[in-house]
Amino acid sequence: MAKKSIGVGIIGFGTVGTGTAKTLIENAAVIKQRTGLDITLKKIADLDTTRDRGVKLPAGVLINDAKALINDPEIDIVVELMGGIHPAKEFMLQAIKNGKHVVTANKALLATEGNELFAEARSKSVEIGFEAAVAGGIPIIKVLREGLIANNILAVYGIINGTSNYILTKMTYEKVEFADALKEAQALGYAEADPTFDVEGIDTAHKLTILSSLAYGIELSYNSVYKEGITRLTAQDIELASELGYKVKLLAIAKASDGKIEMRVHPTMVPHEYLISKVDGVFNAVFVEGDAVGSTLYYGRGAGDMPTGSAVVADIVDIARNIASGSECRVPGIAAGSSGMKIKSIEDIESMYYFRFSALDEPGVLSKISGILGSRNISIASVIQRGRSKDGGSVPLVVLTHRAREKDVISAVKEIDGLPIVVDKTLFIRVEGRES
Amino acid sequence: MAKKSIGVGIIGFGTVGTGTAKTLIENAAVIKQRTGLDITLKKIADLDTTRDRGVKLPAGVLINDAKALINDPEIDIVVELMGGIHPAKEFMLQAIKNGKHVVTANKALLATEGNELFAEARSKSVEIGFEAAVAGGIPIIKVLREGLIANNILAVYGIINGTSNYILTKMTYEKVEFADALKEAQALGYAEADPTFDVEGIDTAHKLTILSSLAYGIELSYNSVYKEGITRLTAQDIELASELGYKVKLLAIAKASDGKIEMRVHPTMVPHEYLISKVDGVFNAVFVEGDAVGSTLYYGRGAGDMPTGSAVVADIVDIARNIASGSECRVPGIAAGSSGMKIKSIEDIESMYYFRFSALDEPGVLSKISGILGSRNISIASVIQRGRSKDGGSVPLVVLTHRAREKDVISAVKEIDGLPIVVDKTLFIRVEGRES
Repeated sequence: MAKKSIGVGIIGFGTVGTGTAKTLIENAAVIKQRTGLDITLKKIADLDTTRDRGVKLPAGVLINDAKALINDPEIDIVVELMGGIHPAKEFMLQAIKNGKHVVTANKALLATEGNELFAEARSKSVEIGFEAAVAGGIPIIKVLREGLIANNILAVYGIINGTSNYILTKMTYEKVEFADALKEAQALGYAEADPTFDVEGIDTAHKLTILSSLAYGIELSYNSVYKEGITRLTAQDIELASELGYKVKLLAIAKASDGKIEMRVHPTMVPHEYLISKVDGVFNAVFVEGDAVGSTLYYGRGAGDMPTGSAVVADIVDIARNIASGSECRVPGIAAGSSGMKIKSIEDIESMYYFRFSALDEPGVLSKISGILGSRNISIASVIQRGRSKDGGSVPLVVLTHRAREKDVISAVKEIDGLPIVVDKTLFIRVEGRES
Repeated sequence: MAKKSIGVGIIGFGTVGTGTAKTLIENAAVIKQRTGLDITLKKIADLDTTRDRGVKLPAGVLINDAKALINDPEIDIVVELMGGIHPAKEFMLQAIKNGKHVVTANKALLATEGNELFAEARSKSVEIGFEAAVAGGIPIIKVLREGLIANNILAVYGIINGTSNYILTKMTYEKVEFADALKEAQALGYAEADPTFDVEGIDTAHKLTILSSLAYGIELSYNSVYKEGITRLTAQDIELASELGYKVKLLAIAKASDGKIEMRVHPTMVPHEYLISKVDGVFNAVFVEGDAVGSTLYYGRGAGDMPTGSAVVADIVDIARNIASGSECRVPGIAAGSSGMKIKSIEDIESMYYFRFSALDEPGVLSKISGILGSRNISIASVIQRGRSKDGGSVPLVVLTHRAREKDVISAVKEIDGLPIVVDKTLFIRVEGRES
């Protein structure tokens, strides 16, 4: 019969583990009042059992043995918050084998090894909760899996990496270069010593993999996500984009057209009048367009102990409600019913483009470059060409295009970059928004 | 055992009924793929069975007898979309008595008669879904009841009436007066011939009643919501607010402090840098602040056939999943566990204020008015006093205050409006944002 008392074990007592424990303990009363359930933190496993994290745990809760936790018969839900691929994966698999439900915030693990984990969970009729894996405290997984379930999803656009959004915000408002903005982000604890995952779009791509799977009913396909980071952007590009009416954001984009899906992560110019362009600092936002609901947007903190803890505990409560009502796996995990949709390669996408050409300040440059663009059916929407270079060197020539095919853009850039008048590699940024 | 085939009946084939039917029929494939369930529209009841709504219904689905639908044994979920209080309430009660689950978009009915309906549903162990009753397609009910369940809710701020937001947007950008903006909204079908419910804040208050009940675990308490509409605002106020760095929005506000809840609907000045100030036109947004998650915001279309249909169908699917997994009433309805929180009267709230005094253009006016404010501990943050009146008449004197008590404000305004130098009633607008 209905079990009203649910035991929880957390593996990993770091930032998110601490936020989760705090939320479970400090907000126990309101959770009980809303659910009628007793959800009790039975154990937390971490190698460091001495550091003070500012949470008061009952005696005996903190242990150093994750395996003991996974085998504890009092624990119904195992929460994996240690991060990394191994041994997080093995711990999750063992918990699932033991018939326990699992909650995780581990986007890297889910994006790369999730198909195996979800299959394993299905075969044992247990759940994997992963609300905290994307966009921190924003309940975007629940929104996609339940709130917008009536919709064919036309597009998802997300700012889902706080570190890179902080850096871009800094570059935008303070006109500093990437390296300086990164340094400040590191000093404030918003970026890690090795920032690769964040600034190269890898973390964003992990999260997009999960969102795309939910939105389009496909398997987790991390390797099919196109990735481009923010390290090549200059303060000048951001300022020129602003002059043209755009903000530059690192967007995760998933779109369906002609039964195919595009999945890509790259710096994107977004019109100033779009709400998502106003999402600054470490905040996250996900824009979802459905065929019935139209445009919707979800905004909040994408990281941090308590916001992420809020999402982890939401998953715990969801599973606890299922346990209590005997409806485990009531909502299928990832890609339960495969839609059979195929994934587009980046060459096949269409977009508008911003180009910054580094050309010598000579007559005929614009004509030569626009000729090459025209030969690939890339039609120019506007041009910014400024003054003269003082030293007879190169000047930036900026071109905004109408909708063009990526394949043609790559071929045009290759030819342009081979011109003797072009002194540095052309930079291009994809542009979203209504065609002007 | 698990029932995989769920029958749906809709009462009311108007705008939302049409959007719901369209969504159920046109998106049946994707809903089936995601849920594994067959959710079938069995009947729609409407007095008008001949008008073409642009939806292709199978023969025999459209009937003119709501009672037959409510008694149809093939129907598991009755969707009430006729609006109004009677006979919508009686239909819902009969459906509940018959052991059927109910979905409704009827905020007026729920806000005013909901306690009885939810009690009845509890006693029969059936559900009432009402995602569509607040903020149209935005899944804000699911967010509050499930996504943010781990949080004590500190505050909810909503733009949840598209009509008044359209009018205010028009007044802001085109500097037209209320009456003209209303006329245009009516011409476009955004406002009804009798716009009272929308422009006097009644519809917003209905929705706030529902949101507050979920956020704070209290009974539906429509009569305790303070209501003030947008009809007294002038284009001048909106322009002066803009000069001071604010947009004017009709906000629904629920906040908890000292264990008490304030619930109020009134024009509110919101700082330009707040995301919610940028929600324009007929769009809705709800800002929710939780103690763990921090600031979050949910944005989308608050009305319209398809966005509202998206929310109605989300409820239908949710209940269908519960039926299929035998977990009916898995998530309690409104105010299941009463929090015991009390409601503050409007006199007891604290806010910052904008005052526009209509005073004669004479020496000493500012000193007299500021003296009266000071005597009530209302301290002035800034003043705008412009030029001279050409005809020796009144000039607007605008004052922005620090945080003050509403009670003191009412008493000060009463005294000021009695001064011989004051020629018209003082207008005040409550101001949100960080104290400057």
